[in-house]
Amino acid sequence: GYDCYPSITKIPNEVDLAVVVIPAVGVPPAMEEAAVKGVKAAIIITSGFSEVGNHELEHKVKEIAARAGMRVLGPNCLGVDDPLTGIDTLFLPETKVLISGEEVIATPRPKLGDIAVVTQSGAFGVASLDYLAGRRLGISRFVSFGNRVDLDESDFLEYFLKDEQTKAILCYLEGIRNGKRFMEVAREVTKVKPIVALKTGKTSAGAKAAMSHTGSIAGSDEIYSTAFAQSGIIRARDMEEFFDMCKALVFQPPTTGRNIVIITDAGGPAIMAADECELRGLKVGVLPEDCASVLKKMKEDAEIPQFASINNPVDLTGSVTSDMFVSVTKAVLQSSGVNGVILLGLHHVPGLQEDYVDKIAAISRNFLKPIIACDIGETEMALYIRSKFEKFEIPSYSSPEDSARVMAALYSYGEYLRSQGCLERYLASFKKRKDSTNTY
Amino acid sequence: GYDCYPSITKIPNEVDLAVVVIPAVGVPPAMEEAAVKGVKAAIIITSGFSEVGNHELEHKVKEIAARAGMRVLGPNCLGVDDPLTGIDTLFLPETKVLISGEEVIATPRPKLGDIAVVTQSGAFGVASLDYLAGRRLGISRFVSFGNRVDLDESDFLEYFLKDEQTKAILCYLEGIRNGKRFMEVAREVTKVKPIVALKTGKTSAGAKAAMSHTGSIAGSDEIYSTAFAQSGIIRARDMEEFFDMCKALVFQPPTTGRNIVIITDAGGPAIMAADECELRGLKVGVLPEDCASVLKKMKEDAEIPQFASINNPVDLTGSVTSDMFVSVTKAVLQSSGVNGVILLGLHHVPGLQEDYVDKIAAISRNFLKPIIACDIGETEMALYIRSKFEKFEIPSYSSPEDSARVMAALYSYGEYLRSQGCLERYLASFKKRKDSTNTY
Repeated sequence: GYDCYPSITKIPNEVDLAVVVIPAVGVPPAMEEAAVKGVKAAIIITSGFSEVGNHELEHKVKEIAARAGMRVLGPNCLGVDDPLTGIDTLFLPETKVLISGEEVIATPRPKLGDIAVVTQSGAFGVASLDYLAGRRLGISRFVSFGNRVDLDESDFLEYFLKDEQTKAILCYLEGIRNGKRFMEVAREVTKVKPIVALKTGKTSAGAKAAMSHTGSIAGSDEIYSTAFAQSGIIRARDMEEFFDMCKALVFQPPTTGRNIVIITDAGGPAIMAADECELRGLKVGVLPEDCASVLKKMKEDAEIPQFASINNPVDLTGSVTSDMFVSVTKAVLQSSGVNGVILLGLHHVPGLQEDYVDKIAAISRNFLKPIIACDIGETEMALYIRSKFEKFEIPSYSSPEDSARVMAALYSYGEYLRSQGCLERYLASFKKRKDSTNTY
Repeated sequence: GYDCYPSITKIPNEVDLAVVVIPAVGVPPAMEEAAVKGVKAAIIITSGFSEVGNHELEHKVKEIAARAGMRVLGPNCLGVDDPLTGIDTLFLPETKVLISGEEVIATPRPKLGDIAVVTQSGAFGVASLDYLAGRRLGISRFVSFGNRVDLDESDFLEYFLKDEQTKAILCYLEGIRNGKRFMEVAREVTKVKPIVALKTGKTSAGAKAAMSHTGSIAGSDEIYSTAFAQSGIIRARDMEEFFDMCKALVFQPPTTGRNIVIITDAGGPAIMAADECELRGLKVGVLPEDCASVLKKMKEDAEIPQFASINNPVDLTGSVTSDMFVSVTKAVLQSSGVNGVILLGLHHVPGLQEDYVDKIAAISRNFLKPIIACDIGETEMALYIRSKFEKFEIPSYSSPEDSARVMAALYSYGEYLRSQGCLERYLASFKKRKDSTNTY
């Protein structure tokens, strides 16, 4: 058991942090007591403030904190999960007991990793944890900030800029409190680490819903898109892109140009990827001369099938083997005219074995160009191949279009870094990080 | 072992179907022999015809078949998988042996079900089988048609119109051979069963890839969009929508109007769904009067939390219980002003137990309105909830935006049926089917 006290003022030791989880009306008196005790920070989980129109109560809390010099997270939030220190204020237990008595994982805490999650919605926050844990992605820290009576999104971005554990930031927003400051801070952060944002309240129905959720004024959606673009923030169109893009930006370097080559054993899916690349501003043009001549030689030497298509997409057809896939990928990566590679190695063909994943991972170390993998399917082999790629930090997707979209995000981030004169520095630091955490 | 013969002409019995899997150059002589034998139909799996520029060889095959009155599927295809009769010409075995010796499912055959798959790409076709089997969706028949020297997409649509086992058609196309006939046939089919199409080769890079894949001329993308819309075909934007929409159209009735209500325990995800609904032409407006007054009464009677938001989205907050979720859903479905319901029951909150799924399924029987479910997450409880919904044929998605998109597809199909004067008939036959296969 833990020691309990009738009031925070009765605790004999110093108190660094107060986590407030009592009904809304009791929050101001509790905060007064915390102030008396000299507490430095409070997390107010309690809801029932400005999101239900109770602005006065929220203002009272703000005043007490300001007077005492206390920093406040919330109210109407879940607080933090910090895998490094073990501080976890989420009131949702990791498991849930079904009616049958069986205990299942319901609100997991992801392992320690590279991604910081900053979210205005607590519910979406825990859903993110569930998603990230299920995909075996790790978080550096998680913060749900709700109605932001004090600390807001800009404060967290500023914090995560300096946090060494964090390599990329996922940011869910319904509104931004101070646009000018947010853009200033974001511009500094994105020079060093990527930010992927999901901004909801795009339509009138969404904006209305946002108002009654965290009391946010959503504002014009185009203004947000422009502000994000100017700050180097990658804006995700929807929840799926939000997670997909983050994984790619953490695992792979940005591209230094828009020329993408698609290597496949499956014609149809390659057309889907090519379509989506072009729609997103990437180029799936003819193969660069040096690369084309190597592949032509491979065809002449019968290293790849006579009927393989050595255009772009390179289609090695159903007769592909692991070694063909690997040597073609190597030849393509070696060409200076190629900025990124999408691999559509559908596992269904007889000659492609799972060892191609290890071999691709081994050669990828020698190139500072993004590789995105895709395998379609939901049964054993597809899940195995995708998870094997991700063990080697090659992001892997179940749809060709998703692969193309994340490549477009890597291009867009690369272009932003170049425009800020910090692409080379980013790539060098990315390489250093990869070399030091070599998983091969 | 099977009996082998040096030539088809040496087989003593009659032969209904020839499956041709020898190298391209040997195909015409083999077809000549099949003609002599009086074979009625041939599936030519072999590739190396017009997709690699070998038009003459393809023309030869066409001539032989026409002369003999033989129907031909292919060449450059996988042929058929028919779970009803057991005919399966796919040369890809169901399992694959890993290097470790372990045998895993690699190219599954889905169980018998409602969905016909018609695909120009064999590789995408098997990937579809993998996807559908993994999501436990059944197929009526699968046909991969490749270069269509004879039978083409319109023939299959015509066939599946009359096929009682088929309730919806998934159609992957790189090009259409005869636009006029295709539209004529499709118009008849879509009055009775939905067609979801994925048409690739949208961009110049995609069109080029399609040409070297199945020798298809992709044509202008807007023309396809218009032709699909005029024929009542639902066009999927990408692979994911393709499968998502098909599942919704098989499981749920189309909407009879655009008014959608979102019921949630999670504010953020509800905003995402509301945004996507509006972007896709649905309305997430104020609750209809009758429905609003029932919910108001429930609030007064403390049947739902005081701080629940009874706007649209209806946000029952983290204090929701299974019974609250169910009774609110029932009240919403009962309102004549509501055409469809999106349920965002995020499982992370303490009071929502898995029994809400069974209860929702039970009440859904009494309404001919679509219900779409969403639960976010990739760990045990989320997978369990989604799969439980689908057991009751309530389509379930992992992202709020996907739920909104499939609702838009149901609206779009409903509007098409209404424009053709066959909405009532479709709904009646849908209801009859549901009543006869009652899974509750």
